[in-house]
Amino acid sequence: MAFAAEVAAVAGRLTTPIWRDKIQRSLSKNKHLANSRYVQLATVRQDGRPANRTVVFRGFLADDDDSLTFVTDSRSRKVQELAVNPAAEVAWYFPQTREQYRIAGNLVVIDAAHVDNALLEARARVWSAMSESGRQQFGWPHPGRPRAAEDPEAWNNPAPGPQDPPLDTFCLVVLRVDEVEQLLLRSNERFRYSKAIKEDGSLAWAEESINP
Amino acid sequence: MAFAAEVAAVAGRLTTPIWRDKIQRSLSKNKHLANSRYVQLATVRQDGRPANRTVVFRGFLADDDDSLTFVTDSRSRKVQELAVNPAAEVAWYFPQTREQYRIAGNLVVIDAAHVDNALLEARARVWSAMSESGRQQFGWPHPGRPRAAEDPEAWNNPAPGPQDPPLDTFCLVVLRVDEVEQLLLRSNERFRYSKAIKEDGSLAWAEESINP
Repeated sequence: MAFAAEVAAVAGRLTTPIWRDKIQRSLSKNKHLANSRYVQLATVRQDGRPANRTVVFRGFLADDDDSLTFVTDSRSRKVQELAVNPAAEVAWYFPQTREQYRIAGNLVVIDAAHVDNALLEARARVWSAMSESGRQQFGWPHPGRPRAAEDPEAWNNPAPGPQDPPLDTFCLVVLRVDEVEQLLLRSNERFRYSKAIKEDGSLAWAEESINP
Repeated sequence: MAFAAEVAAVAGRLTTPIWRDKIQRSLSKNKHLANSRYVQLATVRQDGRPANRTVVFRGFLADDDDSLTFVTDSRSRKVQELAVNPAAEVAWYFPQTREQYRIAGNLVVIDAAHVDNALLEARARVWSAMSESGRQQFGWPHPGRPRAAEDPEAWNNPAPGPQDPPLDTFCLVVLRVDEVEQLLLRSNERFRYSKAIKEDGSLAWAEESINP
């Protein structure tokens, strides 16, 4: 349970990482834009080629855990791909402030059978916070398969309510962050944040100013 | 010269691929948004992990060549990475029309020493069309290296003019497209376009409607 150990190591900390504070400020300054929470998530397919798609940021995992969360359908191709290679990099561009974050780490997929109760609770919490149309999509026919002349009802099944248990196809996706880069197009500044484990076992983030 | 042969195969065609027409329409409908030409380009690093960054779409290569073009600095890490693994996937989200394109293929980097004259001409054309600040960046200190307390002049060298030859660091990046997916969030439609070589050697694009 390396993940639980890591969570414990940062519990009770007094400060959040600079990069998380920066992202929170960017979100705040760009919140009038409908797509300010849309990010592009890159992973690697089983044939060694990259995959890239837009996903919605669903918040940080907890006050004391800086993992980013997303959701996916258990039937989507990326779930199988992540079982082989969990590495990911998010590109997140904020149009209002003209900033880009690149966020690298490993993804963990939390389905109904996951063993960690805290992560199962996070899955249920994100499910409850989804829009009705967002919840409804997890009852749709198999994503990516040829579209059949099916009963139109297949697309119109009523969505489960926010307090209903998540559908089995609903997965929480957790990005455990190892490195962050911020590029500011207005000021031509660029910062790199790298994770390091300190001698006492706690996490620290090193900040470096690099050439844009 | 597989590339030249491929270009020849499509020369003189009467129609452009449906997906290219669709992207042109999306660009037109979203052109009031300053970042409608910003896309996210995913590649694979030498350690097998994905990389993802925002780049500016610089147009299709030619009327009869549907490759997408971008630019990069020869000193950027991705140039070395692409020499090992040229595979790429672009994610392109259009906020106004709520559409996503995923565009997969292989990247070719065109530097000053490239052997193909047509591609060198394309490199010079894109250089001339760059903004002054865009051209200036190719004279900046080495991207990604620690920022030094250098002479501030290093950042203020005047940009070469649009008619000056491109700086040696200036590379054209050409994405030779193999597959395109379009996802329409408004109508919940999703289309896949796959490249195929017909019996007479010409290119064809197969369209398939798939589940969103």
